[in-house]
Amino acid sequence: MEWISKSNILIVGLGLLGGSYAKALKRLGYHVTALARRQETIDYAVAHGIIDEGSAEVDPALVGSADAVIFALYPGVFKDWIRDNQQLLRSGALLTDVTGVKRCIVYDIQAMLRPDVEFIAAHPMAGREVYGVENSDDRMFHDANYIVTPTDKNSEQAVEWCKSLGRILGFRRISVLSPEEHDKMIGFLSQLTHCIAVSLMTCSDNRHLVDYTGDSFRDLTRIARINDAMWSELFMLNRDDLLEQMDLFAAEFNELRNLLAEGDVEGMREKMRLSTKRRAYFDK
Amino acid sequence: MEWISKSNILIVGLGLLGGSYAKALKRLGYHVTALARRQETIDYAVAHGIIDEGSAEVDPALVGSADAVIFALYPGVFKDWIRDNQQLLRSGALLTDVTGVKRCIVYDIQAMLRPDVEFIAAHPMAGREVYGVENSDDRMFHDANYIVTPTDKNSEQAVEWCKSLGRILGFRRISVLSPEEHDKMIGFLSQLTHCIAVSLMTCSDNRHLVDYTGDSFRDLTRIARINDAMWSELFMLNRDDLLEQMDLFAAEFNELRNLLAEGDVEGMREKMRLSTKRRAYFDK
Repeated sequence: MEWISKSNILIVGLGLLGGSYAKALKRLGYHVTALARRQETIDYAVAHGIIDEGSAEVDPALVGSADAVIFALYPGVFKDWIRDNQQLLRSGALLTDVTGVKRCIVYDIQAMLRPDVEFIAAHPMAGREVYGVENSDDRMFHDANYIVTPTDKNSEQAVEWCKSLGRILGFRRISVLSPEEHDKMIGFLSQLTHCIAVSLMTCSDNRHLVDYTGDSFRDLTRIARINDAMWSELFMLNRDDLLEQMDLFAAEFNELRNLLAEGDVEGMREKMRLSTKRRAYFDK
Repeated sequence: MEWISKSNILIVGLGLLGGSYAKALKRLGYHVTALARRQETIDYAVAHGIIDEGSAEVDPALVGSADAVIFALYPGVFKDWIRDNQQLLRSGALLTDVTGVKRCIVYDIQAMLRPDVEFIAAHPMAGREVYGVENSDDRMFHDANYIVTPTDKNSEQAVEWCKSLGRILGFRRISVLSPEEHDKMIGFLSQLTHCIAVSLMTCSDNRHLVDYTGDSFRDLTRIARINDAMWSELFMLNRDDLLEQMDLFAAEFNELRNLLAEGDVEGMREKMRLSTKRRAYFDK
């Protein structure tokens, strides 16, 4: 059984992800504290054994006693928190996060951070179409990827610690990517797919078709139930990569459309055969 | 327990769907025969109790003894079969099919058909990403829709018979649509989604991303493994409806792209909220 150093862990932001981190870590025997915006969130988490203690204020004692801090906040709020409260951190503390975009966060945080604490960024690629600590459930990590995105400023120990954190949380696969590689990947695999799902849902009012819907349509639009505040912020923070991926997709879709319009059956079949061949690589 | 008249049933085309029909009907106690292209298919189906008897030739005795004939063929092959072999059908026989497009089939078949037999079209909206009688499995009907698409030429008895057939096969929901309504619906719900999945898979070579793939990407591309012969034929046979749907989607996707490019966060959030609201109707 792996055990990570830094066993007094503070989680800042107790939503679905923060709550799921807390649940897993507390069950493993770590001392888990949390900061949340609302007192009810803290009360719920304490009452349900998700955290040991917490506060709806930025409690200096709570922050100062943490060996490790996990930020589960929206990107903008995360930066503000560091700017306003980093003086409260214990010297030697290790910080990590769950943010879904990296370039726009990692370098800024590292640049503004005190030299005696270290920020090692990570992206747990797990989520649900529900929100809040009440829905937290660390089983969602078990089939998911966990990506550590270090920079030149990171120590090897911090990278290893962060990978260990992913392992003890139960993630299926732990990888290391640069912030740039991460953002390109996420632009394609996650953000583009959400753009497609949303557009498919909004392109016409098809509620009268609900009775005829099969699995394909449900599969393609499952993620069309989307947290608009979070995703619009993530899109904006990865705008150039996402636009590039959207344009690639739109050009390809248009090519298929023109093959159909021209009646080029062999051209369509070629696309379909390539698609079938490539998709085979993605089967679990 | 419902029992349909026409209990001597011939299935023409013994692939995944034809085989699944056969399995279900034989288990219910009907006498099920089949025509297939290859003798091995017939041998397999007889050996596994999927059919009572069958032939790799268009056997006049087999065709002439059927009260009902279910055509599970590609659209083009289906038309040729009727043209070449309809003289073998028993007078009073009822014909139905499983074809995924309707306008281009139903009227042509009805126009060329002998006056003493009746064709009532249906579309069982069920399928798998596997092929052949070996994979046939009527459990795929249990959560699926079955659509009857009658025309002015159809008798009320034939429509009722066809609905009963869908019910005894175990389909979750039986509906009646005109061939035109059906093709419009299928252009959006099924064909457009396949075009999207294929384009997402072919727009760039992303095999190196396989390690980071989450559920959203897998969900959106599950149907990107596609039978190129069948789907290119279905696309061509529904070309005008599918092009219309593709253009609606492409315009909407482009709108979202431009909102992002312009940094119009509120515009993006509005699309996402509409998407979330609409998707809620499609939850099972």
